[in-house]
Amino acid sequence: MKLANRVAATQNVGLNDLYTAPDPQQISFAGGYPDPAMFPQAELTNGLKQAAADRAAFQYADAWGDRALRDQLAALMMADGIKATGTDILITQGAQQGIDLTARLMLDPGDGLVVEAPTYLGALAAFNQYAPTYYEVPMQEDGMDLEALQKIQLTHPVKMIYTVPDFQNPTGAVMSLEKRQALVRLANRFDVLILEDGPYRFLRYEGASLPPIKAFDTEGRVIFLGSMSKILSPSLRLGWLVASPQLLDGLETLKGAADVESSALIQRGVSRYLDAADFPAHLAQLRQTYRDKRDVMLAALHRELPSGFAVTQPHGGFFLWLQGPAGLDMTRLQKGTLLPAHVSLVPGRNLSPHHTMASGARLTFAAPAREDIEPGVKRLTKALRQRVRQATGSAD
Amino acid sequence: MKLANRVAATQNVGLNDLYTAPDPQQISFAGGYPDPAMFPQAELTNGLKQAAADRAAFQYADAWGDRALRDQLAALMMADGIKATGTDILITQGAQQGIDLTARLMLDPGDGLVVEAPTYLGALAAFNQYAPTYYEVPMQEDGMDLEALQKIQLTHPVKMIYTVPDFQNPTGAVMSLEKRQALVRLANRFDVLILEDGPYRFLRYEGASLPPIKAFDTEGRVIFLGSMSKILSPSLRLGWLVASPQLLDGLETLKGAADVESSALIQRGVSRYLDAADFPAHLAQLRQTYRDKRDVMLAALHRELPSGFAVTQPHGGFFLWLQGPAGLDMTRLQKGTLLPAHVSLVPGRNLSPHHTMASGARLTFAAPAREDIEPGVKRLTKALRQRVRQATGSAD
Repeated sequence: MKLANRVAATQNVGLNDLYTAPDPQQISFAGGYPDPAMFPQAELTNGLKQAAADRAAFQYADAWGDRALRDQLAALMMADGIKATGTDILITQGAQQGIDLTARLMLDPGDGLVVEAPTYLGALAAFNQYAPTYYEVPMQEDGMDLEALQKIQLTHPVKMIYTVPDFQNPTGAVMSLEKRQALVRLANRFDVLILEDGPYRFLRYEGASLPPIKAFDTEGRVIFLGSMSKILSPSLRLGWLVASPQLLDGLETLKGAADVESSALIQRGVSRYLDAADFPAHLAQLRQTYRDKRDVMLAALHRELPSGFAVTQPHGGFFLWLQGPAGLDMTRLQKGTLLPAHVSLVPGRNLSPHHTMASGARLTFAAPAREDIEPGVKRLTKALRQRVRQATGSAD
Repeated sequence: MKLANRVAATQNVGLNDLYTAPDPQQISFAGGYPDPAMFPQAELTNGLKQAAADRAAFQYADAWGDRALRDQLAALMMADGIKATGTDILITQGAQQGIDLTARLMLDPGDGLVVEAPTYLGALAAFNQYAPTYYEVPMQEDGMDLEALQKIQLTHPVKMIYTVPDFQNPTGAVMSLEKRQALVRLANRFDVLILEDGPYRFLRYEGASLPPIKAFDTEGRVIFLGSMSKILSPSLRLGWLVASPQLLDGLETLKGAADVESSALIQRGVSRYLDAADFPAHLAQLRQTYRDKRDVMLAALHRELPSGFAVTQPHGGFFLWLQGPAGLDMTRLQKGTLLPAHVSLVPGRNLSPHHTMASGARLTFAAPAREDIEPGVKRLTKALRQRVRQATGSAD
């Protein structure tokens, strides 16, 4: 039996490799896992128990999601600069489903899709299924290169732009205020949808927060994706999207076709949790823990990195970007040197549709235990130094 | 912004209309809801509490699903005639996601897809997104008309056949043993995938169970879909699929691209429930309750149905089929007469891709309270009698 063409395109991405760690000695800087010590286990369990006390929580509900939760998320959005009520929100299975549903909503085969280079691997896995024509826009310290974007838009039909403006996955970069506003103007001018993926927005460790791109949306062409995966627990599989009414109707239909609806039990449990918990205090604890881990990792990297390598300085989120010298192949380095040394990262090759970022890699400081970060960086940098010596001493 | 073509195709189906009941006086025979009195609320809550006691249940796990649960489901499948181990199983967000993932795996635009007429609305909603070329095969008392199927296969390229062989949604029919075996032979001969949707398999109220089609699969071309929605609780959103290794790899990749994975917390909770509960006794209770409701509905229908109307006699599941006289439009009847009389069903028009079943309708006996069934049937049959009188007395 011949499989659909989208299968090979999706399998190309290598998403799954991230989520396997068969080596118990390995210190992994790869997967974007939150620190399990930070799950509010007792409070979440309590919320779920309360929800389960109502028999209706076990029945079908609807594809939009639990209305009380949607209202709570709308309040969270309002406080963050996005004008929204509960009816502007659709509940999703994590932000990943938000990406998939938006791609389903917008993309016919061949449609123009702009992504940052490098970008989030899981987004490419979702997008590849819909066979878009990709355009890569290079990342800069203050977000995607808008001059490069404008050149693309002037010469090619673009339907949609995917961006992670806050603590970008994988570089950790924050898009500047000016670029957020300019991006909306470009989208308006060229009739484009912006998909703003914001799972790290509440995880800023220094500096002042900037409004989401959605806050500048004047024509209902920005979809904002939120997620509880990094700030509460990934196994809740609880994400949401904020979109204009004319887009939401289609998204809700596609959600129903994909999996009928998300779990009412989980949604009500999270709603009870948000009712009872001091969520701002929880977020403050997260920020303190992850800021500290980031500092440990940056200090170790600055001390140990050989010349020819550089790292970004993220002000929040889970990730930083390790840039190696031109010609270095991080995928080969990982296979040949890092994995045998029991340390791992995400090689850059698969983090852009045209495989242009092979000499860089994503590192997370969120997932590893604090005490593993320095030894892990030592394993990593030792391997990098070996690699530099080999490169200098050989024609490799 | 122009939306993707699949959006209009999906919205066409009218899936959402099923899941809204804005009239509190209405007795609904429409939505395929399980009886909420049958949820094992305390036992499920206990399973979830036990799962939540382990911090790891709140972390990412993997796209395949919880291994202990997959082993338990494999044992359930083995006892039901399907040779499977845990590694032959992928966890999904209900069987609906199993349908969507299988369609993603197999269907390029224009590919031939056979469905029963009438068939399950939600399956059409999922399939429509992938723009197949549909072929309808009429339902008979013993399952789909295999002569009609063979004619189609001899003259058109068919890639996939979708069937609900046990207590079919919406007719309640059971495919005979001979047809199950012949269907596999046809699939082998014509190189076709069979998608066997089995959410009602464990809900047989009379007669002996037949093996699933998957039990006769010799070439790895049958995918079986299971679901806890009808037999435990829909808000667990817990389904699974059994497939051959060469198909499972692609399905797992597509699952990851769709929503990363299903909730580890829910999966572990259900696994604990299955460990502790007397699941066969629970299923026996379900069968007793639903058999009784079916009997109440059939008795009332046989007593009250006007001539020109007939109903099927399901041996299990949730549904029966009401067939009206040729020319009757159940959609118009619902809007004009049934809804004003505070009773509802699922009109047949949307239950086949070419809208060929407009004079029939699906009724469920599972969802309404036992004491509502007879009054509901009276409302329904009163409306049908009115309609017959109007049709006889007018040129309508």
